[in-house]
Amino acid sequence: MTYNKITAPILSEIKQIIGNEYVVTDTADLERYSHDETEDLRYYPEVVVKPQTPAEISALLKVCNQYLIPVTPRGAGTGLSGGSLPVMGGLVLAMERFNKVLNVDEENLQATVEPGVITEEFMNQVAAKGLFYPIDPASKGSCFIGGNIAHGSGGPRVVKYGTIREYILNLEVVLPSGEIIWTGANTLKYASGYNLTQLFIGSEGTLGVITKAVVKLIPAPTADALMMASFNSNEAACVAVSAIFRAGIVPSTLEFMERKGVQWVIDKDGLSFDMKPEDAAFLLIEVDGTNVNVIFDECEKINAVLEQHGCTNVLFAESAAQKEELWRIRRTMGVSVKSNSVYKEEDTVVPRAALPQLIKGIKQIGSSYGFESVCYGHAGDGNLHVNIVKANMSDADWNTKLKDGIREIFELTVSLGGTLSGEHGIGFVQKDFMPIKYSPVHFELWRGIKQVFDKNHILNPSKIFNS
Amino acid sequence: MTYNKITAPILSEIKQIIGNEYVVTDTADLERYSHDETEDLRYYPEVVVKPQTPAEISALLKVCNQYLIPVTPRGAGTGLSGGSLPVMGGLVLAMERFNKVLNVDEENLQATVEPGVITEEFMNQVAAKGLFYPIDPASKGSCFIGGNIAHGSGGPRVVKYGTIREYILNLEVVLPSGEIIWTGANTLKYASGYNLTQLFIGSEGTLGVITKAVVKLIPAPTADALMMASFNSNEAACVAVSAIFRAGIVPSTLEFMERKGVQWVIDKDGLSFDMKPEDAAFLLIEVDGTNVNVIFDECEKINAVLEQHGCTNVLFAESAAQKEELWRIRRTMGVSVKSNSVYKEEDTVVPRAALPQLIKGIKQIGSSYGFESVCYGHAGDGNLHVNIVKANMSDADWNTKLKDGIREIFELTVSLGGTLSGEHGIGFVQKDFMPIKYSPVHFELWRGIKQVFDKNHILNPSKIFNS
Repeated sequence: MTYNKITAPILSEIKQIIGNEYVVTDTADLERYSHDETEDLRYYPEVVVKPQTPAEISALLKVCNQYLIPVTPRGAGTGLSGGSLPVMGGLVLAMERFNKVLNVDEENLQATVEPGVITEEFMNQVAAKGLFYPIDPASKGSCFIGGNIAHGSGGPRVVKYGTIREYILNLEVVLPSGEIIWTGANTLKYASGYNLTQLFIGSEGTLGVITKAVVKLIPAPTADALMMASFNSNEAACVAVSAIFRAGIVPSTLEFMERKGVQWVIDKDGLSFDMKPEDAAFLLIEVDGTNVNVIFDECEKINAVLEQHGCTNVLFAESAAQKEELWRIRRTMGVSVKSNSVYKEEDTVVPRAALPQLIKGIKQIGSSYGFESVCYGHAGDGNLHVNIVKANMSDADWNTKLKDGIREIFELTVSLGGTLSGEHGIGFVQKDFMPIKYSPVHFELWRGIKQVFDKNHILNPSKIFNS
Repeated sequence: MTYNKITAPILSEIKQIIGNEYVVTDTADLERYSHDETEDLRYYPEVVVKPQTPAEISALLKVCNQYLIPVTPRGAGTGLSGGSLPVMGGLVLAMERFNKVLNVDEENLQATVEPGVITEEFMNQVAAKGLFYPIDPASKGSCFIGGNIAHGSGGPRVVKYGTIREYILNLEVVLPSGEIIWTGANTLKYASGYNLTQLFIGSEGTLGVITKAVVKLIPAPTADALMMASFNSNEAACVAVSAIFRAGIVPSTLEFMERKGVQWVIDKDGLSFDMKPEDAAFLLIEVDGTNVNVIFDECEKINAVLEQHGCTNVLFAESAAQKEELWRIRRTMGVSVKSNSVYKEEDTVVPRAALPQLIKGIKQIGSSYGFESVCYGHAGDGNLHVNIVKANMSDADWNTKLKDGIREIFELTVSLGGTLSGEHGIGFVQKDFMPIKYSPVHFELWRGIKQVFDKNHILNPSKIFNS
């Protein structure tokens, strides 16, 4: 696809649609829209616009379609796969002014929210009414719910509460043609034609621009318990993960952390967590519900399973402050690891019981290529984030050989029944690895779907696959 | 689209692929494949084949694509929207020999199952290992899990456990081209390109033929309680539904039944349920979990909510036998109603709190058109099955005017934020009503998607929409 540049006359049309003050063209101001949280990639848009209404987006998309201008929708820019990078230049649609929770419907346990609302703010607003939205990625304090929907984002509670797919009931989207539609209905069940809502979830802004979401809410749990379990090896911790579910318990979170990740958080943030020399890996396990006695019972059962599976110590959080501190270790791990070294983060996911093989294999691949890695993630879902850190690897090897090592990690992931990404999306940086898992038939279907929605391929080009 | 008939040479090719004994051509034998459970519709296929492997289906689809023969996949034939009717003739692919549970993976809490397995048999097989698959439509004793997936089927437990979309992780499908693919990965999370698994769920056999499904399982609840609550009006019962959730409780089922439906079951099956003269409607409410005390607490809370909302009596089931009897009332209601009268069943779904308006409006529409209706369904999901019974309506009115009345019901449903079907699918009988909810833009997108998967429109033609 050949795209055009945004010329002065086109810019003038754009400004007429949304007004001068919401059009950014100054290079210094464009900088923050040139990157997300994916490594150190920089792609500058030609122009950033900040629309506030679906009608404005509709008009903008019509103009961009007419002149073949690439359009990249952008949430908070917290993505880890380069999904919001304007790699072909053109227009960035910054959704930050779509920042309102339009309605919290306590009768139906539903909310209608704009995509530029910060996930945690949304959670807090519904929590104030005793309701619960459980999808909270580590970046919940800064990411937008629209980005979460576009990337199929998860977070620690998916293991008990299900994926974001179960909570997004209906979407208002602007199609590249400028048409504005609701994808489905505001209902808990839906069997009325091809499910466009589900198709948009995880489509990474390549099929349309999300402008409203109707979200399912549930009654909030009223109590929880948190424990941190120590193990002498990564594999032992991973083996214990499956055993907990086999014992009939579904924790509300079940997170894995490698020692080095914990160490870096402690060093950086000065957290007071007493790590023993023999501790190699940790599971952070939360149980929630509405009855304290049941929660204690489940903790005891989990404790018994952990003891049978080589756990060397279990720390029960005894106060809200201690819970918060343990959660901070997990939640800030990504940032800590990244501030310590040049890195690349991969988001592997396998069937839960394959985790021990996965982590063992990752370390073996690291050894053979000479890179180190820090692994952590949502072990209960089989979802392991692999942070490859440059450490002592030479620049030459980092820039050339590393990609082969990453390829081996994904080949291993796929051979274990997994796939490339569980919750970060494919975006720009993982798309070259997609043929490891998917056949030309898959690409043909995906390209066909893309073509149905976006005939001129103006929307977020070069993402997920080359269209 | 113009299709061809299955000529003798084509039939010969078909027989070569799967062997004479699995090809049905005798009219008497074709009869059972000419209908499902949708009213009294009859469409005869030209030929029925009973393949056993994806490779056989692949070869069959290639032949049918070459000669432009319509192909209708068929599960158990328990559908309520005519989805498996071969309305254009051609070949019926009877999936009854795909009847094996291939694997129950206790390590990962997953199972791999063929589509022709009866849902209840699958549930029992996983239950024998302490595991739980919660998606059980009323027809669970006869329907196939493949049909459930193709129709996005639900059942009473969706209200707590989520829809079938949350349980189907990966599908093996044969595309109309003959290509065989897995749609995704065997993982609990998935953010790796357009989600083909979700697209196939609810696509009613129009995009490909499901040949294997990887299913998520969960630990089984170990205890439950069941109560039947009586109300003096439909609206009072429906108002109580939302109130239960607002009290912070998520029952495992929350079913609504109108008096007449209960009466017909009692009359037909001789069940001993003591219905009082003033009882107009009932809620069948189940709570499940792992702790009996918590369940009792929740029952008490529900009881309090019911009392505040005009409930006149609550019957707690005191034995497994009594639970079974109460469930039989609900589960056999569809069959009882249908055996009492000529009928049409519509599957409406609205946001939960709109149920009182929906049922009131349905009765008003019935009055103005002169038809009676018996309503029941998954009230916790806002999912109401409307059985329109002919009763005293004249044949002329039944055959001509009724459709306008049904149209009004769907217009009301849509005006309340709902859609045409929550779990029965659109199939053949509801497709004319789709424009009530969906715009030409939706149809254009759906037709585009259909075209991507099925260039010659051979697969289940004339379903969901006219392609």
